[in-house]
Amino acid sequence: MTKKVFAVIGTGAIGGYYGARLHQSGEDVHFLFNSDFTHVRDHGLTVDSHYGDFSIPPSFLQAYSSSEAMPKADVILVAIKTTSNPLLSSLIAPIVKPNTLIVLLQNGIGAEQELSEQLNLPFVGGGLCFICSNKIGPGHIDHIDYGRLTLGVYGAEGQPLLEQVAQDFRNAGVDVDVESSIVDARWKKLLWNVPFNGLSAVLSADTKQIMQCPELVTLAKEIMQEVQAAAKALGTDLPTPLIDTMLSNTAAMKPYHTSMLLDLKNQRALERQYMYKNVLDLALAHGVTMPKTATLYQQLCFIDPATSHE
Amino acid sequence: MTKKVFAVIGTGAIGGYYGARLHQSGEDVHFLFNSDFTHVRDHGLTVDSHYGDFSIPPSFLQAYSSSEAMPKADVILVAIKTTSNPLLSSLIAPIVKPNTLIVLLQNGIGAEQELSEQLNLPFVGGGLCFICSNKIGPGHIDHIDYGRLTLGVYGAEGQPLLEQVAQDFRNAGVDVDVESSIVDARWKKLLWNVPFNGLSAVLSADTKQIMQCPELVTLAKEIMQEVQAAAKALGTDLPTPLIDTMLSNTAAMKPYHTSMLLDLKNQRALERQYMYKNVLDLALAHGVTMPKTATLYQQLCFIDPATSHE
Repeated sequence: MTKKVFAVIGTGAIGGYYGARLHQSGEDVHFLFNSDFTHVRDHGLTVDSHYGDFSIPPSFLQAYSSSEAMPKADVILVAIKTTSNPLLSSLIAPIVKPNTLIVLLQNGIGAEQELSEQLNLPFVGGGLCFICSNKIGPGHIDHIDYGRLTLGVYGAEGQPLLEQVAQDFRNAGVDVDVESSIVDARWKKLLWNVPFNGLSAVLSADTKQIMQCPELVTLAKEIMQEVQAAAKALGTDLPTPLIDTMLSNTAAMKPYHTSMLLDLKNQRALERQYMYKNVLDLALAHGVTMPKTATLYQQLCFIDPATSHE
Repeated sequence: MTKKVFAVIGTGAIGGYYGARLHQSGEDVHFLFNSDFTHVRDHGLTVDSHYGDFSIPPSFLQAYSSSEAMPKADVILVAIKTTSNPLLSSLIAPIVKPNTLIVLLQNGIGAEQELSEQLNLPFVGGGLCFICSNKIGPGHIDHIDYGRLTLGVYGAEGQPLLEQVAQDFRNAGVDVDVESSIVDARWKKLLWNVPFNGLSAVLSADTKQIMQCPELVTLAKEIMQEVQAAAKALGTDLPTPLIDTMLSNTAAMKPYHTSMLLDLKNQRALERQYMYKNVLDLALAHGVTMPKTATLYQQLCFIDPATSHE
């Protein structure tokens, strides 16, 4: 079997880490960079990792500033924020083959189906990253902790290829779970993300501050119950005890800045479409209203740095 | 008929203005001050008003630093924030007679009934102030615009005395409406206050910024509909067209900082009990849920400067 060609679209904290691991284990990985391109061409890609630091020197780094210059890929790891998804299908179209497995390493729900329709693909994979990783400079990633991937595929035909990719990741030292339903996995992550990302951004609060306010704990729980009801209407059963487990785990965590709070602080667009609007629309289409989640979404529209105010 | 004794409890932007007007028209008005007491004892009370500036010199100002020193009053105008209401009954007990008319110049709902029970009074009046007035220094009030009072009384026996007081205000140049139901008037004001005070505080936004965000206009309208439903369950009919009228008036207004936004900016406690919690509790007791209003209330609990965070 010939070696698979991997493409990483969005070489930041997530894409850079997982892509560099695959490269390190001998895979043929091609990285798309944005503003960091000239820097990495001269200096390579550096990963400070709590499992041991490593780097890809310039002569070994297959770096690109445009997807048009990249080879067609067997596997495309998409690690841009969902706020850029309106551009995604045209960005990756040049490197897609009929049986390419795209894996969306993104938050929220609905993107796999959307992309499979836009590109007329029989399957699109998705991945959830349980990782603490930051980009701390051009071509410089700081992998602080964790790293487990949960993978799944929209479109059953893609399952065998997804299993191969999961094995590639395991060979590269990444823990991987393969779920029979990426949708179930996405709802489970949304159960936490919907209350805590939105509340942290609207209130400029970390998880500890939220958990110390009894009224906000109640609100977070009520929003989780709305997510649970929406998931159920769409065919995903999230067990009720999971809510209290997640809340007590969150209370026990060190103060944590959610990705949406970080986006806000860095004046980046908020991932409100895939994390909120799609959830609300899917729920409504199945007769479920989510008034507290909707309130949070409406507030996020206002504070979103991508929204202009006078 | 002997002259009525008026007491003003809380001589700030509201109490100072209306009390000074009554004094100016010849009424016997006694003012309770807090931190401004020593200043006004030496310098009097000054009102810059768009109807013409005036002042009460020290020798004519009946100023007190404690209610214990004040004479029993026929009429007590209460103009402290509702956040101090837990102290109110003991504060005014020394000056209450069996037929004293207390008039609560405060926002929110439920305070008249509460006070009538605490002090075992047959009636307690309430007032809504449609005024732009600020305290700009010790004993110094800036009356910017408007000034109309809407008065009503909880306990029908108080109606004749309330009518007299309304006439006293009119004699002092203050426009007054007397409503048969203070509760109806309070619900009508809540229809605006509940969405705009809370949203402005949680989002640090003025009315113009709120009205420029389509999602927030929708949210404000939905919250108004919740208030309307709660009012209806409690016997007050707020006509539906009033909602759109209020919204278009708000869109046409100059940018306005709500009282709750000002309280937040000045690190004062937020009036969430009478403006939100009482509304939610009354609604729930009548089988009406207000999920969007409740979300706002829960967020206000977090941002309230009176709440301590680590």
